[in-house]
Amino acid sequence: MTPGERLRELGERLPPVAAPAGAYLPAVRSGSLVFTAGQVPFVDGRMAATGKVGAEVDVAQAAGFARICVLNALAAVDALVGLDSITRVVKITGYVASAPGFTEQPAVLDGASTFIGELFGDAGGHARSAVGVAELPKNAPVEVELVVEVTTEVSR
Amino acid sequence: MTPGERLRELGERLPPVAAPAGAYLPAVRSGSLVFTAGQVPFVDGRMAATGKVGAEVDVAQAAGFARICVLNALAAVDALVGLDSITRVVKITGYVASAPGFTEQPAVLDGASTFIGELFGDAGGHARSAVGVAELPKNAPVEVELVVEVTTEVSR
Amino acid sequence: MTPGERLRELGERLPPVAAPAGAYLPAVRSGSLVFTAGQVPFVDGRMAATGKVGAEVDVAQAAGFARICVLNALAAVDALVGLDSITRVVKITGYVASAPGFTEQPAVLDGASTFIGELFGDAGGHARSAVGVAELPKNAPVEVELVVEVTTEVSR
Repeated sequence: MTPGERLRELGERLPPVAAPAGAYLPAVRSGSLVFTAGQVPFVDGRMAATGKVGAEVDVAQAAGFARICVLNALAAVDALVGLDSITRVVKITGYVASAPGFTEQPAVLDGASTFIGELFGDAGGHARSAVGVAELPKNAPVEVELVVEVTTEVSR
Repeated sequence: MTPGERLRELGERLPPVAAPAGAYLPAVRSGSLVFTAGQVPFVDGRMAATGKVGAEVDVAQAAGFARICVLNALAAVDALVGLDSITRVVKITGYVASAPGFTEQPAVLDGASTFIGELFGDAGGHARSAVGVAELPKNAPVEVELVVEVTTEVSR
Repeated sequence: MTPGERLRELGERLPPVAAPAGAYLPAVRSGSLVFTAGQVPFVDGRMAATGKVGAEVDVAQAAGFARICVLNALAAVDALVGLDSITRVVKITGYVASAPGFTEQPAVLDGASTFIGELFGDAGGHARSAVGVAELPKNAPVEVELVVEVTTEVSR
């Protein structure tokens, strides 16, 4: 089953590519790697929630938002080279807007990592860094970027 | 027009490569990618400004400092492989030392992204992550790193 | 002398690979690059210290913890492709959990960079970004991730 088929089986679909927040692109390919921009939990052009994790946003909510970030990142990859050209999810970097004393960033990012595992299986096995930052753009609670490996034969 | 020619047309020139703040190099190439070190707004060996964006430093000033970070990053790439060997600016990561409640990191980083667009045109189209961090080295207001794609034929 | 031999000469040995803090892998290879997960100063399965650098943890201690992060990162690379297949350490990103006003992140990361220089010599010359973040997973004082170049002939 392809990641696209698995996505549908999970009852999800890729959203439209979120407009970048500035003078940059949602994703760029160089050789067999695609780097996505940092994605925040935009849904239908609006931030799904704002605030700090550990204060206004709890861990379970934040994990759900991290999953939305991944959907947005995959939409960016899909628009660039096609979702099913991904041969490996290589790296996730996750930034969690953290209330003082909040140290469960890994549990937040597991919302991203678990979803990638569901979609890609073994090809979804990725390295990850999770850090707690002071502030994120537009008061987003979480921001996620991906580095993925793609087949260089496919482009669209 | 090459990026080097465009830089001169903009009335800019690459500064000397800023001395690293520790036991590392300004830029390293692996294959067709060059990764720069995180660059702060050093001008003539001194930090152009210090403090948090949203407090001591305003957005417009910070965008100007982000542009200086890019000049420093490009100087590092130039010294390694030559500015005109850049075939694509792939990724920018921008760290903004942010006062509590400051969430306009994308506007700060647009100082970097717009400048890259001016220099490189379509080849400057890059992915970007912008985050707000608690503190930066030497109290810099902003730190920018680049990943660029270069021609592997050229080296100097 | 290989990095592995040099490590033994320094009286060190690679620790067991630290269990990831979530649904991700310690390191992933794509082409000739290996990306490690962000590593915290785990020793024997326990965090060596917690707290903010500039408050509970001083710079010299934090530099030592950054060195431990590198050992953990290299253990992850070793398990994946073998330590001696590293041909270049390309990039370090270091996140320092920073007390307000602490701006000596480069001195902390030099604990990582100097160690890499000792192990790899010229092949250890890397680019580096160091930033001060609000919070790190499990209250770690420092988190370090590596991008290394490896020979694609070797795999185990």
